[in-house]
Amino acid sequence: MINKLVEKIRKTGAPVVVGLDPMLGYIPEHIQKAAFEQYGETLEGAAEAVWQFNKGIVDAVWDLIPAVKPQIAMYEQFGIPGLEAYKKTVDYCHSRDLVVIGDVKRGDIGSTSAAYAAGHLGKVQVGGSRLSAFGVDFATVNPYLGSDGVKPFMDVCREEKKGLFILVKTSNPSSGEFQDRLTDGRPLYEWVGEQTARWGEELMGEEYSYVGAVVGATYPEMGKALRRIMPRTFILVPGYGAQGGKGADLVHFFNEDGLGAIVNSSRGIIAAWKQEKYAGFGPENYADASRKAVEDMIEDISGALKER
Amino acid sequence: MINKLVEKIRKTGAPVVVGLDPMLGYIPEHIQKAAFEQYGETLEGAAEAVWQFNKGIVDAVWDLIPAVKPQIAMYEQFGIPGLEAYKKTVDYCHSRDLVVIGDVKRGDIGSTSAAYAAGHLGKVQVGGSRLSAFGVDFATVNPYLGSDGVKPFMDVCREEKKGLFILVKTSNPSSGEFQDRLTDGRPLYEWVGEQTARWGEELMGEEYSYVGAVVGATYPEMGKALRRIMPRTFILVPGYGAQGGKGADLVHFFNEDGLGAIVNSSRGIIAAWKQEKYAGFGPENYADASRKAVEDMIEDISGALKER
Repeated sequence: MINKLVEKIRKTGAPVVVGLDPMLGYIPEHIQKAAFEQYGETLEGAAEAVWQFNKGIVDAVWDLIPAVKPQIAMYEQFGIPGLEAYKKTVDYCHSRDLVVIGDVKRGDIGSTSAAYAAGHLGKVQVGGSRLSAFGVDFATVNPYLGSDGVKPFMDVCREEKKGLFILVKTSNPSSGEFQDRLTDGRPLYEWVGEQTARWGEELMGEEYSYVGAVVGATYPEMGKALRRIMPRTFILVPGYGAQGGKGADLVHFFNEDGLGAIVNSSRGIIAAWKQEKYAGFGPENYADASRKAVEDMIEDISGALKER
Repeated sequence: MINKLVEKIRKTGAPVVVGLDPMLGYIPEHIQKAAFEQYGETLEGAAEAVWQFNKGIVDAVWDLIPAVKPQIAMYEQFGIPGLEAYKKTVDYCHSRDLVVIGDVKRGDIGSTSAAYAAGHLGKVQVGGSRLSAFGVDFATVNPYLGSDGVKPFMDVCREEKKGLFILVKTSNPSSGEFQDRLTDGRPLYEWVGEQTARWGEELMGEEYSYVGAVVGATYPEMGKALRRIMPRTFILVPGYGAQGGKGADLVHFFNEDGLGAIVNSSRGIIAAWKQEKYAGFGPENYADASRKAVEDMIEDISGALKER
């Protein structure tokens, strides 16, 4: 799957992933209204609004980008109906040949991580059948429990040719509270990065490893250091746009080959219609606003990469 | 909810939580067979087997214990039907007046943690309605992202009188890989413990805080140190039984008042019928085997507490 991701980035020229993190506040009134008329102001109604909203955006942007990243929390908050909308979104993106990164940030003791890995990336054994539950292509994984929380995910990746992004340095303001703590003069995130590179060596694709890393756009200097520590690790970079990252800040997350990183934007794309810059589209044409925002983002990042 | 947990521990005399982590391998043949006859070897069939198995155990042990802890991964691996079985289990345990600890180990950037908190512990706004999705009483939370990943959970706890258990030192063999790293001569888990105690001060119940901690039974010396660092923090202790912890190892997780900790056993209770010790019950009476295993566990822990 890492090979497919690299190939699709080359083909689209877009090291960009659209975060499908649909808060109800991002969804235009007319979509919410239609969903609530059908299902009431219920979890089912919210899930239907989310699904219709996502479908519009995917239809508008799928040809520009290699991948999407649904954040499962935004679906999980609506319970079972929300998770049905998550699954429908994953399947629909697959029908558009998009790589799907499930932003699930799971991680637990070995036997439990194995269950998460089976459910999200692999297959689960039920009697004589092997069944897929969510079936995404990559999952994000929290490393706090160490190797035996990560290895079960790697086992499934090996079998299914799926991939991971390990949280190394997250984009949020307080990420330094524990991640920046110094041990022997080096911050924890560097140790996690080094371990991620080591895990990655066990599971190499053609150019990059199936084991990637998450490093926030909001910490460009740390991204530069981590790029060196993890040369064959693909970096998923959240925090572009709404959280503050800009294309020029991101060049050092990439290798000289112009690869090695994929930048996520969620709110900046899916809620583009609410920004002054794209307000001309109007809520009815929210998906066209998203398409324009994707085009602008690709130009910003490609431009910065060319100039470096 | 921490006050209710303390009260129920006093009433039952059992600082014990039963982990409802039903792997299919733990479920007696006759239950699996009945479920597969009805639904086939499908995710629905697996979920039905899990639910029937859980119901049997809850009916057999509910009066002995204050709380249960379903591990959501074991349900999530069966996709939407699995999560429906999770929700049914949560609701059924509530109908038996059990405190339900959702072992979800979520944790993300602020806005995303807010969605998880709403979905698992609180309510989500849909139009003019405020709706509950999973509605557990406590959730486990991963601290790797720092305060702004934890605070949204605390906000919901404040509003809903719910509680948290923050992963401080986990029970698995490789937990030391990052958690034991020394900063200024002290391991990371102590810094996390100190921060957990600080978060807890902002959200105190009568005797203990709504913000608890997870510390593995498999590391009794670290439990002793953390008990001192977090005096008003309730400690959820996994790793008893199947993972290796014994009652005598656990006394220092408790305060002098005999409170302050609650010990989880999953496999050791729910798969008791598969152990030689309880084999006499037979698979048909698996729930009675679980009841006996709970009684033995309470005796082991209470005995150790009396002897110290």
